[in-house]
Amino acid sequence: VSVAADLARVVGAEHVLAPPPAWALHDATEWAGLRGSAEALVRPGSTEEVAGVVAWCAERGVPVTPRGGGTGLAGGCVPDGGVVLALDRLDRVVEVEPESWRMVVGAGVTTARVRRVAAENGLHFPPDPGAAESSQIGGNVATNAGGPHTLGFGATRRWVVGVEAVLGTGEVLDARRLHRDVAPYDLLGLLCGSEGTLAVITEVHLRLLPAYSPEPPVLAFYDDAEAGCAAAAAVLAEGQQPAVLDFLDAGALASAGRSGGFALLAEGAELEGAVASDDVWRWREGIAHAVAAQRGGKLSEDVAVPLARLAELVDGTVEIGARHGLEACSWGHAGDGISHGAFMLDASDARQVQRAHAAAEELFDLALALGGTLSGEHGLGRLKAHRAEEALGAPTVAAMRAVKAALDPLGILNPGVKLPRGPLRDRP
Amino acid sequence: VSVAADLARVVGAEHVLAPPPAWALHDATEWAGLRGSAEALVRPGSTEEVAGVVAWCAERGVPVTPRGGGTGLAGGCVPDGGVVLALDRLDRVVEVEPESWRMVVGAGVTTARVRRVAAENGLHFPPDPGAAESSQIGGNVATNAGGPHTLGFGATRRWVVGVEAVLGTGEVLDARRLHRDVAPYDLLGLLCGSEGTLAVITEVHLRLLPAYSPEPPVLAFYDDAEAGCAAAAAVLAEGQQPAVLDFLDAGALASAGRSGGFALLAEGAELEGAVASDDVWRWREGIAHAVAAQRGGKLSEDVAVPLARLAELVDGTVEIGARHGLEACSWGHAGDGISHGAFMLDASDARQVQRAHAAAEELFDLALALGGTLSGEHGLGRLKAHRAEEALGAPTVAAMRAVKAALDPLGILNPGVKLPRGPLRDRP
Repeated sequence: VSVAADLARVVGAEHVLAPPPAWALHDATEWAGLRGSAEALVRPGSTEEVAGVVAWCAERGVPVTPRGGGTGLAGGCVPDGGVVLALDRLDRVVEVEPESWRMVVGAGVTTARVRRVAAENGLHFPPDPGAAESSQIGGNVATNAGGPHTLGFGATRRWVVGVEAVLGTGEVLDARRLHRDVAPYDLLGLLCGSEGTLAVITEVHLRLLPAYSPEPPVLAFYDDAEAGCAAAAAVLAEGQQPAVLDFLDAGALASAGRSGGFALLAEGAELEGAVASDDVWRWREGIAHAVAAQRGGKLSEDVAVPLARLAELVDGTVEIGARHGLEACSWGHAGDGISHGAFMLDASDARQVQRAHAAAEELFDLALALGGTLSGEHGLGRLKAHRAEEALGAPTVAAMRAVKAALDPLGILNPGVKLPRGPLRDRP
Repeated sequence: VSVAADLARVVGAEHVLAPPPAWALHDATEWAGLRGSAEALVRPGSTEEVAGVVAWCAERGVPVTPRGGGTGLAGGCVPDGGVVLALDRLDRVVEVEPESWRMVVGAGVTTARVRRVAAENGLHFPPDPGAAESSQIGGNVATNAGGPHTLGFGATRRWVVGVEAVLGTGEVLDARRLHRDVAPYDLLGLLCGSEGTLAVITEVHLRLLPAYSPEPPVLAFYDDAEAGCAAAAAVLAEGQQPAVLDFLDAGALASAGRSGGFALLAEGAELEGAVASDDVWRWREGIAHAVAAQRGGKLSEDVAVPLARLAELVDGTVEIGARHGLEACSWGHAGDGISHGAFMLDASDARQVQRAHAAAEELFDLALALGGTLSGEHGLGRLKAHRAEEALGAPTVAAMRAVKAALDPLGILNPGVKLPRGPLRDRP
């Protein structure tokens, strides 16, 4: 095959797999039935090799799907033909400067390793997305990943002061910055959360914090979503500034072996009737798996709404599931209004998968009707791109297309992700 | 004049001044001799009128210079022909939601008023740029303005969750977002700090904090810049997290009536030998004026370097001034490595102004040689755009030009600011 032979010359034959292995064709949406196709998996070992692969693809109009840990929940690294470009070999911790709270790492370093290396140097990397042992920092930047502590510490973007990235032309962009630098446009911020559609991130410069001693988390139970969300809103209205203010609904609690109508999990806030619980974080981290284990799979979303409308979203999620014959539950980050609504399913049953996707569309309808967004955490990926224009408005999507055309003029980077296929794909 | 008559139909005759008044042709760089020219000053009263003005200019290729409070220090609102578009009539506080820490304001609301309205509602708007009584929030967003508290609280960008803005085509972009929303590209972040070259910001949605009770500031004196900068670095290396870590060199101290080789001003940090000082903030706020008063004017810069190189920058600033026969001093934000190097001058003496500009060029050379940036706070504006490519590299400037062409295809928004005049201006 020409693709494999040509790219072998760029990265070495042992780093090209054609056809690609099955794991390179899906991400964590596999539970919801999403699988793609590609001609080859390529594993470059340096920024220069990434640039070489992208330039080769640009010359031939071959789509490139950048791939980090493959833990995404929106199908953002599910390929639709072309080449899967895995960043896992860029796994070097390049530099650590403990006294100035900085670290430089390759895009393929896992999130958990970033946090460990930071801790070994007396520092703290605040973002705490799920699947930290598998997810890679490059993917975290590409999705501007968040997690429970985003409320208090911001998402990945806040901690990135520079990236090295390869644009859709194969050109290398060195967007390193000081902590404060207002000379350039914020291209760095533009790449954060662009889901691999504007550039392939190859190296990340992080600003960290000194070691962090979290307050012990507390857990408080409420009769229902309305009471619990009102309590969450009261925490903020009182001027408390929690580092975490998460929630779990009745179904999520039941999946994880606890009974109750609704619960708040807070760090750095006082909640009436709350109890401290040392193992609550380990328990909380297991929720997604516990929910998936109910039927063997789940379609998990991440819509977000203003906190004042969160209870309606939580109750509505269960109702939508019921209408489609699926058990549903939700948990998430109340302080940021983010709900991981999940429809439980048996992924081997095509009808259930189909019903779950229909339910998800109704969940998107509900979130938008409540003044919310399609995605507070996962991105639009391949699963939600078709609703971008409805959610964001035509002028925003037109501006996004123009920016995409500026940095990826041939439209080869992750086509069909984030932006629906449109004029870009019709170009020669 | 056709410009005035046509635009009078858009905004009303009483809101068009042709020729424009003198104050509309300069910003705070007037002290350094920068004055522009324009055909008219236009003062639209709504986003729709702003869109009407920009659309009229786009059709005719007339340059538009958006103008906030005119407090900029890089010539970012000094017009080079065309129309000055002042946002001062968009001065409405549209909405305040104290319980969810949010506020929506017109672009023309002053920074001081944002802070006052926040305080009246039990909230705090952290950014504290200078000239807060005159500067406007739209200009703060357009320059991603910072100040002493940026070290602890981030610059303006961190507190903006949405803008309404008019692109170079006259189209209105409604980039409102929830606190967490990863559906769109970060167009919002892209507009922050774009210095009016990508869009005219007309409305700003802010996320605030609960009321803030600052620790009293402390002041510590050192023999010289080397000792003081070492003390600042030690604060961070010890894991202290100051909200403010500012510095003043000997010349700045002398201008402000204090003697000493070098001083650190900190909030939220312990410094050996420091003394608390209740009136230190008022004194600190007067520094820029006190320095300017020495000779009647100053050319004030805002280069930034890694903290480890700050002492070299501070000493080098005085040496550069001496070589050009100008007294020089510096003060700024040590924690962020930002130095306001100022060359004192008599603005009525053209030779002094010329020597100051030559000195500034050498200061830029020094900052870049120390691994720094041309601008940590003020932006590139019209004064520093000519060095953008050298400072940022050709690929970054090419990407900036492509992004500019995407949002302002005719190149009418603030041409010559941020990006040097180039291919964009050659377009029809």
